[in-house]
Amino acid sequence: MSWLGLPAEHPFGVDNLPYGVFSTGGGPRRVGVRVGEHVLDLAACAERAGMESAAVWRAGSLDAFLAEGARAWTAAREWLLEQLTSAAHRDAVEPYLVPLEQVAMHLPFSVADYVDFYASEHHASNVGRIFRPDGEPLPPSWRHLPVGYHGRAGTVVVSGTDVVRPVGQRRAPTETAPTLGPSTRLDLEAELGFVVGGGTELGRRVDLAEADDHLFGTVLLNDWSARDLQAWEYVPLGPFLGKSFATSISPWVVTTDALRAARVPLPRQHPAPLPYLRGEAAYGLEVHLEVECNGTVVSRPEYRDMYWSPVQMLTHLTVNGASLRPGDLFGSGTVSGPDPGSRGSLLELTWSGQEPLTLADGSTRTFLEDGDTVTLRATAPGPDGAVIGFGACTGTVRPAR
Amino acid sequence: MSWLGLPAEHPFGVDNLPYGVFSTGGGPRRVGVRVGEHVLDLAACAERAGMESAAVWRAGSLDAFLAEGARAWTAAREWLLEQLTSAAHRDAVEPYLVPLEQVAMHLPFSVADYVDFYASEHHASNVGRIFRPDGEPLPPSWRHLPVGYHGRAGTVVVSGTDVVRPVGQRRAPTETAPTLGPSTRLDLEAELGFVVGGGTELGRRVDLAEADDHLFGTVLLNDWSARDLQAWEYVPLGPFLGKSFATSISPWVVTTDALRAARVPLPRQHPAPLPYLRGEAAYGLEVHLEVECNGTVVSRPEYRDMYWSPVQMLTHLTVNGASLRPGDLFGSGTVSGPDPGSRGSLLELTWSGQEPLTLADGSTRTFLEDGDTVTLRATAPGPDGAVIGFGACTGTVRPAR
Repeated sequence: MSWLGLPAEHPFGVDNLPYGVFSTGGGPRRVGVRVGEHVLDLAACAERAGMESAAVWRAGSLDAFLAEGARAWTAAREWLLEQLTSAAHRDAVEPYLVPLEQVAMHLPFSVADYVDFYASEHHASNVGRIFRPDGEPLPPSWRHLPVGYHGRAGTVVVSGTDVVRPVGQRRAPTETAPTLGPSTRLDLEAELGFVVGGGTELGRRVDLAEADDHLFGTVLLNDWSARDLQAWEYVPLGPFLGKSFATSISPWVVTTDALRAARVPLPRQHPAPLPYLRGEAAYGLEVHLEVECNGTVVSRPEYRDMYWSPVQMLTHLTVNGASLRPGDLFGSGTVSGPDPGSRGSLLELTWSGQEPLTLADGSTRTFLEDGDTVTLRATAPGPDGAVIGFGACTGTVRPAR
Repeated sequence: MSWLGLPAEHPFGVDNLPYGVFSTGGGPRRVGVRVGEHVLDLAACAERAGMESAAVWRAGSLDAFLAEGARAWTAAREWLLEQLTSAAHRDAVEPYLVPLEQVAMHLPFSVADYVDFYASEHHASNVGRIFRPDGEPLPPSWRHLPVGYHGRAGTVVVSGTDVVRPVGQRRAPTETAPTLGPSTRLDLEAELGFVVGGGTELGRRVDLAEADDHLFGTVLLNDWSARDLQAWEYVPLGPFLGKSFATSISPWVVTTDALRAARVPLPRQHPAPLPYLRGEAAYGLEVHLEVECNGTVVSRPEYRDMYWSPVQMLTHLTVNGASLRPGDLFGSGTVSGPDPGSRGSLLELTWSGQEPLTLADGSTRTFLEDGDTVTLRATAPGPDGAVIGFGACTGTVRPAR
């Protein structure tokens, strides 16, 4: 129990302690930890306590902390828990708690490489049925490896950043030539994003058991997608401008330690994956997501329905010898479950625009309109009935320029 | 004429002046300019001359210089030319010339996002015929937009770095299930890489006329490719592990100014591209490439055969509002011409392994073997009969781990 007196079910209690980067009053960016309705100014608090390792938090990003690796992350968590639960530290720590309403949040780390996977069988099958109605819904390799591709790291933005409707080439089904214009099929994709720390050397593979040590934490991720641009461009080299205009992430990185109680077995993988992807170390996660459009919850995806484990994704990513850098980010791909109400994209929820959704104000949506605000939220089970909250991941669509 | 007394046809004469990052004797990395058989230590020389802007060169990378933008690049080039051609500067400059044999070269800049295009009609058609023999060789969008995808920025390495043969999943044509193992179809791809400077704001498009201001310079690029991994994984999200294990670039960035005399008209584009990709500002480049394997020249691709202009690629990359960062790198895609002797990959040169190449030592190759060294070289025409050289881009294949 914390001396902050937080209710046991508070989603940002001492079992969570997610990291982020904040500023107050237009001042410099600082690393913080969210506790209840406050942000702990980490460098200042640690310096006051005489911690040698405080230096890694002095920068305006998590970059240096991510580089340190799993042992440092665990040590920091233990130190934080001690500060926040032992009444003896209260007087020393309390001055460094900043009320949440006074802070602005920023991108928590410099995104090195951004990869997006495609790990939901339900999502991949739905997209296959919609985009390639005459073929098999799943590509032949889908059950053998976590399919993924690289996205644009430079356009990953923090929650709250407006998203300008992208312009691009698209070809209507009735036309022979493409035209240029604002996307008319702008979509969201509800995902988890995994934040990598601790770099590896080029040419070295990370095995399944080791993968967890490189997973610093998890964010909510909205992989905004322009379906019309994507459909026209994606053969044969994959999604490009249909995705690269913006990817939003929540400001708080929920640590791998905080999600330990949320681990669940994976759904059955059949056929069994090759040995490098198989083993006890692979786990699923119980995370309850909500997708909200203009205040109406339009979907409740469950992360436990995902076919591939985050550690399988990371292991696969390096099996060819590709190195990891601190700040690498990989998305899970859209989280969609078997039920229509658990689909993580409008493409699926409206079945490519054929079945519009009705929002609370009575308006209907096939795809996103200018002015629409999309918000992702999530919670996961913590230890002993605690709740682990994710920060919201929100963005408002602005008209094309 | 330079006081260095370089022969007029020297590929690194004063018409070239490419930038790189070097060190001597294991010391710190420094920004340098290649002149003849020397490297000019730029920060030291500029500081001695009292140049205010010397600070941007003091770092061990071109990053700060790339951020400055086109006006600063032109000013620096004018200053350099003055230093190297006016005899009055000789005594002041000469002490900062380091003989080439004393330097080690490093990655010249931090690669922000790496994109690879597919801009050769001959290459795209050949690959289409090989990978999709029953379909149209070119995808429907190919003549309407420069097809591209994001690659892994963190595995871009400087020339001279060994390339470890990647391990990955591949499925033999006669098998139903994939196996894991070292790639048996390891290939090279001869490309030009374009180095972006001067960032842009998210949501803003760069038009064709402006694109050139963001092109700092050009390198040779080998987009190493594991064809067996690629064939198994690339549907539907594009190349991933088949490419992400390594991409080599030459150490010297040849500036856009140095390649001005190499501009040539593009091949005819039919159908005419949409207006945002059309205009006087689009140009081709006359660059003569050579692909060497273990000392035998196996191909002589001509860059002027490329369908899409570098400025069209950059403009397209931002049409959806994606921002540019200094250090973004985009590859042209494999440079292949209409003749078999001008194809830029072994996939095409051996027609997917069916027609082995014979090297000077009498051995044959379908794909690359352990120990093979691949070297790309290139020259372009400079002003008044001068020759603009690129640094070699070389790498040796090491056995899988």
